[in-house]
Amino acid sequence: MLLHLATWQEVENYLKISSGIIIPIGSTEQHGPTGLIGTDAICAEAIAKGVSENHQVMVAPTINVGMALHHTAFPGTISLRPSTLIQVIIDYLTCLTEAGFTRYYFINGHGGNIATLKAAFSETYYHLSHLKVPQAAQVRCQVGNWFMCRSVYQKAKELYGDQEGSHATPSEVAVTQYVYPESIKNAFLSPDVASGYAIYGAEDFRVHYPDGRMGSNPALATPEHGKELYDLAVKELGESYLKFLAGD
Amino acid sequence: MLLHLATWQEVENYLKISSGIIIPIGSTEQHGPTGLIGTDAICAEAIAKGVSENHQVMVAPTINVGMALHHTAFPGTISLRPSTLIQVIIDYLTCLTEAGFTRYYFINGHGGNIATLKAAFSETYYHLSHLKVPQAAQVRCQVGNWFMCRSVYQKAKELYGDQEGSHATPSEVAVTQYVYPESIKNAFLSPDVASGYAIYGAEDFRVHYPDGRMGSNPALATPEHGKELYDLAVKELGESYLKFLAGD
Amino acid sequence: MLLHLATWQEVENYLKISSGIIIPIGSTEQHGPTGLIGTDAICAEAIAKGVSENHQVMVAPTINVGMALHHTAFPGTISLRPSTLIQVIIDYLTCLTEAGFTRYYFINGHGGNIATLKAAFSETYYHLSHLKVPQAAQVRCQVGNWFMCRSVYQKAKELYGDQEGSHATPSEVAVTQYVYPESIKNAFLSPDVASGYAIYGAEDFRVHYPDGRMGSNPALATPEHGKELYDLAVKELGESYLKFLAGD
Amino acid sequence: MLLHLATWQEVENYLKISSGIIIPIGSTEQHGPTGLIGTDAICAEAIAKGVSENHQVMVAPTINVGMALHHTAFPGTISLRPSTLIQVIIDYLTCLTEAGFTRYYFINGHGGNIATLKAAFSETYYHLSHLKVPQAAQVRCQVGNWFMCRSVYQKAKELYGDQEGSHATPSEVAVTQYVYPESIKNAFLSPDVASGYAIYGAEDFRVHYPDGRMGSNPALATPEHGKELYDLAVKELGESYLKFLAGD
Amino acid sequence: MLLHLATWQEVENYLKISSGIIIPIGSTEQHGPTGLIGTDAICAEAIAKGVSENHQVMVAPTINVGMALHHTAFPGTISLRPSTLIQVIIDYLTCLTEAGFTRYYFINGHGGNIATLKAAFSETYYHLSHLKVPQAAQVRCQVGNWFMCRSVYQKAKELYGDQEGSHATPSEVAVTQYVYPESIKNAFLSPDVASGYAIYGAEDFRVHYPDGRMGSNPALATPEHGKELYDLAVKELGESYLKFLAGD
Amino acid sequence: MLLHLATWQEVENYLKISSGIIIPIGSTEQHGPTGLIGTDAICAEAIAKGVSENHQVMVAPTINVGMALHHTAFPGTISLRPSTLIQVIIDYLTCLTEAGFTRYYFINGHGGNIATLKAAFSETYYHLSHLKVPQAAQVRCQVGNWFMCRSVYQKAKELYGDQEGSHATPSEVAVTQYVYPESIKNAFLSPDVASGYAIYGAEDFRVHYPDGRMGSNPALATPEHGKELYDLAVKELGESYLKFLAGD
Ligand code: NI
Ligand code: NI
Ligand code: NI
Ligand code: NI
Ligand code: NI
Ligand code: NI
Repeated sequence: MLLHLATWQEVENYLKISSGIIIPIGSTEQHGPTGLIGTDAICAEAIAKGVSENHQVMVAPTINVGMALHHTAFPGTISLRPSTLIQVIIDYLTCLTEAGFTRYYFINGHGGNIATLKAAFSETYYHLSHLKVPQAAQVRCQVGNWFMCRSVYQKAKELYGDQEGSHATPSEVAVTQYVYPESIKNAFLSPDVASGYAIYGAEDFRVHYPDGRMGSNPALATPEHGKELYDLAVKELGESYLKFLAGD
Repeated sequence: MLLHLATWQEVENYLKISSGIIIPIGSTEQHGPTGLIGTDAICAEAIAKGVSENHQVMVAPTINVGMALHHTAFPGTISLRPSTLIQVIIDYLTCLTEAGFTRYYFINGHGGNIATLKAAFSETYYHLSHLKVPQAAQVRCQVGNWFMCRSVYQKAKELYGDQEGSHATPSEVAVTQYVYPESIKNAFLSPDVASGYAIYGAEDFRVHYPDGRMGSNPALATPEHGKELYDLAVKELGESYLKFLAGD
Repeated sequence: MLLHLATWQEVENYLKISSGIIIPIGSTEQHGPTGLIGTDAICAEAIAKGVSENHQVMVAPTINVGMALHHTAFPGTISLRPSTLIQVIIDYLTCLTEAGFTRYYFINGHGGNIATLKAAFSETYYHLSHLKVPQAAQVRCQVGNWFMCRSVYQKAKELYGDQEGSHATPSEVAVTQYVYPESIKNAFLSPDVASGYAIYGAEDFRVHYPDGRMGSNPALATPEHGKELYDLAVKELGESYLKFLAGD
Repeated sequence: MLLHLATWQEVENYLKISSGIIIPIGSTEQHGPTGLIGTDAICAEAIAKGVSENHQVMVAPTINVGMALHHTAFPGTISLRPSTLIQVIIDYLTCLTEAGFTRYYFINGHGGNIATLKAAFSETYYHLSHLKVPQAAQVRCQVGNWFMCRSVYQKAKELYGDQEGSHATPSEVAVTQYVYPESIKNAFLSPDVASGYAIYGAEDFRVHYPDGRMGSNPALATPEHGKELYDLAVKELGESYLKFLAGD
Repeated sequence: MLLHLATWQEVENYLKISSGIIIPIGSTEQHGPTGLIGTDAICAEAIAKGVSENHQVMVAPTINVGMALHHTAFPGTISLRPSTLIQVIIDYLTCLTEAGFTRYYFINGHGGNIATLKAAFSETYYHLSHLKVPQAAQVRCQVGNWFMCRSVYQKAKELYGDQEGSHATPSEVAVTQYVYPESIKNAFLSPDVASGYAIYGAEDFRVHYPDGRMGSNPALATPEHGKELYDLAVKELGESYLKFLAGD
Repeated sequence: MLLHLATWQEVENYLKISSGIIIPIGSTEQHGPTGLIGTDAICAEAIAKGVSENHQVMVAPTINVGMALHHTAFPGTISLRPSTLIQVIIDYLTCLTEAGFTRYYFINGHGGNIATLKAAFSETYYHLSHLKVPQAAQVRCQVGNWFMCRSVYQKAKELYGDQEGSHATPSEVAVTQYVYPESIKNAFLSPDVASGYAIYGAEDFRVHYPDGRMGSNPALATPEHGKELYDLAVKELGESYLKFLAGD
């Protein structure tokens, strides 16, 4: 049920039974010395596919570059400006709404996307109302952040305690190890890891977080943890999606 | 210390001792049958002035129209689109940064502004870095939501319990009663008040929240409560501002 | 009849008897060594309230930051770019028009806003025509510049002659003294005041007008003059508004 | 000295002796039953060429579509939105400024362009200051409206009195008859011509000005008048240009 | 049948028999030591007029500044950014479509415009579909590049062989000599002319093509060749236009 | 050498030996009754990975939604507007250039992207020149369309002759069958397939190409063909990339 692997006639048939779609969104940004640049996209995409399999939901192609301007002082980071990302979301949802979709569930792998996504949803509802697409008033968007699932959060605390940190976390690294075991990285991780600074501009971020980690110890990650966290996220977000779809 | 009531030479002198400024931001939106349309701007402005008096901080003119697209099915609501508000914030902060300001503390009266403000801050840091304004890398923004202050939240729970709700709340109405006692409104408030629906588009919002309130009973508000809440917010946000200004 | 101090139900009732609204617009910009940075917004807002009281007109919240790019070489000035201000006006008028308003009377305190406002009106009519809002073809906008009222202009000439100048004028300073008597400023005003240079970019402006005044002697202002000028503006703009509203 | 008929090496040489350029701007809009749709561009271009010949000034290609949204209910009108025209002006002046030009004199044939041009100039100065083009602070723009030249205005009054009107005027029609004598049109002109209505949206405009004229009687125009008016405009705008170029 | 020399009533009548219009588009850019900066606009406009005369087609005013960013390191070049040009095209075609036109044939003189024009056409179809202009679905655009006409190309090869090159070509220079025989230029043309480098940014372009020519020898051009090439282009594009208009 | 599977320190090391990167770009659009909606992204990504393996080139995450507005009348298509895609490209290349990349080779799977990509490249060079990023003048972009490789084109002709068509072609379907053999689709394909109509708006496209194919017979595709075509594209684009990187 991946949109990418479907034909337009299969989509047409799907729309007869559901108007919901999952859109994975990640980021392309530094994740410390051992975290993959694609971590957020990899996690979001893998979990979205898991939910799709469990509940026969259509999954759109992953938005793999998001809002990561604060990471742009590290090479390899690619970010959209928030105002660009808003236009991207408007374009996606206008096309899909004109085709008959009305429920958009974003499975998100990156905290930095949340604010812009919410802004984009507001602007999209308004934009669609002016296009007078018949079902514009039925359109609804929701963000499901896999790393903020209650079950995931508890498991991460149990496994890593304070060393979970808030960026380049062992939990997200673990999920990528589960998905791409052949890409597990080794690199020096200083036991001194910065934490507690607020996030402002990119240059300031790199000054305060010189290796990119925010209070985390990703060396604790294992592919087995990744499997556990993945399973929890798939289960919880699946339930969340069904509730969203059934929403009054 | 209101920018509006200062001369440019007073600003020049102020910049010799501080590069911080408070920017109140509210909204112009329906607040139920008895709440003022300007509630969020009134609260943000009053509290900002209170902080200014206590700590000799410059206060910019209030941004009194914010991001309230979901309230636009009620007459009297005025909203910017998120992409417009982002440009407005960029314009404000570019002017102020070129003049020498670097610390922007937004005292916010409206939950709906938060996402767009955060998106705007990211875009502004990036924009300023490209202008190569000398102090661009020092620029920092923070949102202080008065209604989310711990002390305010606790007081509101104590005074109103579950009847605080989440929009057109007795606590925000109380603050406006304290500020504008001559504008206390009476209108029928159904004891049945909607609550628990997620926020999507404007039309959907009005269907689910027909009188504009979200789970609140603003009839509980009194000007005396308003004074108490105001005092708590001024104190807590003042401390928060000082901490922000001193930030490493 | 201030929108900020009304409820949405009061607006709904107002719309049954009138579709007109006054929108005060000022600027946040240097006004010479003794003029308040908020001068233009203060004057516009005060006069708009006066008109509102006389004629029971709804008044929107003041747009207190306008188009003042040429003043941005002086600290304290905040300006929107014209293209941002156009989007702001479109957003305001789209919301208000969808609610039922059709006649927008801008009481303006700043010459620098006029061109952008006119451009914005044209773009708004066009934008609304494409949204197919039912009453789009009825929408009309007008700018009422209080400082260009015939009666105000004559009084200013009578009081100040050539020393009225064209920016940081004694007449606008007088109105702010009437409104905020506690904020009357004293500062050295060189008897040599620049005048006669055309306005181009911000840096060029400051070179030619080093203290910010344009040919004016604001030391002549008194709160009593301010009251006289205020009364004249309120009277003349009130009549102008009624004529606009009644327009064929 | 037309840019279009010069080589880049001739421009390079011109820039050694002058940094001024004339940019004709017109409009493509209805001009009543007998006026040419290109009237405003034709007049601006012809007069710009006249000034160029007298004073050896470089003339850029004519901007022949301007801001004429209020005329768009008549077929044949083409208009830019103000926000588009602002971007066009920014693009023109950025290219020319990077090449070494700094003084931009717009010879304008259309009242509806004035507001947007002024807004565009402000935005351009600001834009250029951020690009840090070396000579950005020297950039200056001015609009010369041929139809508002004192000498032209007086001659038009003398020739046509009240029948000059304000759109599709005999004076502008006369200039086009002088430039394109083979395109003099004959069509029924009702003796009843609308006048005195303010300009709002396009639909409203056509309702009030059903044949497109605003209080004018273009039947009075002759090619001989056109020659007289052309000569006056060329003379007066030539002097205005020289004064602009010499400006301090 | 030039729009500029027509009245709105003549356009109204034209629309009763045809909904097609030709829009010439050129560029304002360096064309080597002897080529006119306006070459591309001059050729496009002249050929468009020729087609118009043969087939009674309406011709819009020439878009004489196009997409020539890669030439901006040479003085005299003026270019729109692609995103500006897209908005310009949207504005033109929205006005014309609302008036009743549906077939837009662009006679183009500049290779650098093609990509942006195609992008603009796609965006315009989409934009119009959302405005719900009745005939939006009938709107069609096509680019006719005179220099890529089979007959023109063959004649140029026959006349100039490899010395035709790809910018500042003898064939385009010849057409301008035919149109403006009084503006034939003489300047030193090095026998060594750069060719074969791909086009990237403006600075890079000038490094590789120091006199602006790309592999061409414009000294071979004659006004007589220009006449021949003009005739071929008018004939071939006229047929192409008729086919476009008749398209199913 | 996939950016997504690298760490930022690996990117830092890569930049010491190369400043080139491959960016795969596809589309999410209908591909007839049997073609996958992700066909263009799947092909571009697979071929990019092949080139990467052969030549140790870094590959950015795939842009899987491109410019496909003309396919939006079929459900499942998602498209950016050209003006959005231009901003996306600017954002990508600004981030990457500030990190040290300068050579951008887009491996493209969709003809509809070409025009907008070219426009975006021009706008990006210009944008970067104004940011004054040190290496802005070295930035170069190129599009490599796998389906237009000479070797691919010849093989497709050899295998399919006229039944290759121009959209939902057997050659692109074959490559997806090679990459995703488990997603080979069966559906009725009418022997009558439309061809020869030009592409305009989305509604018009569907009228003329009712099942989405353009002259193609994708039933001829086999995974074995896909492997052959893939190998040819990887080889030819790899050589093209090396030539681009070595470019003077
Ligand atoms: Ni992450
Ligand atoms: Ni509120
Ligand atoms: Ni003022
Ligand atoms: Ni005119
Ligand atoms: Ni050319
Ligand atoms: Ni394809």
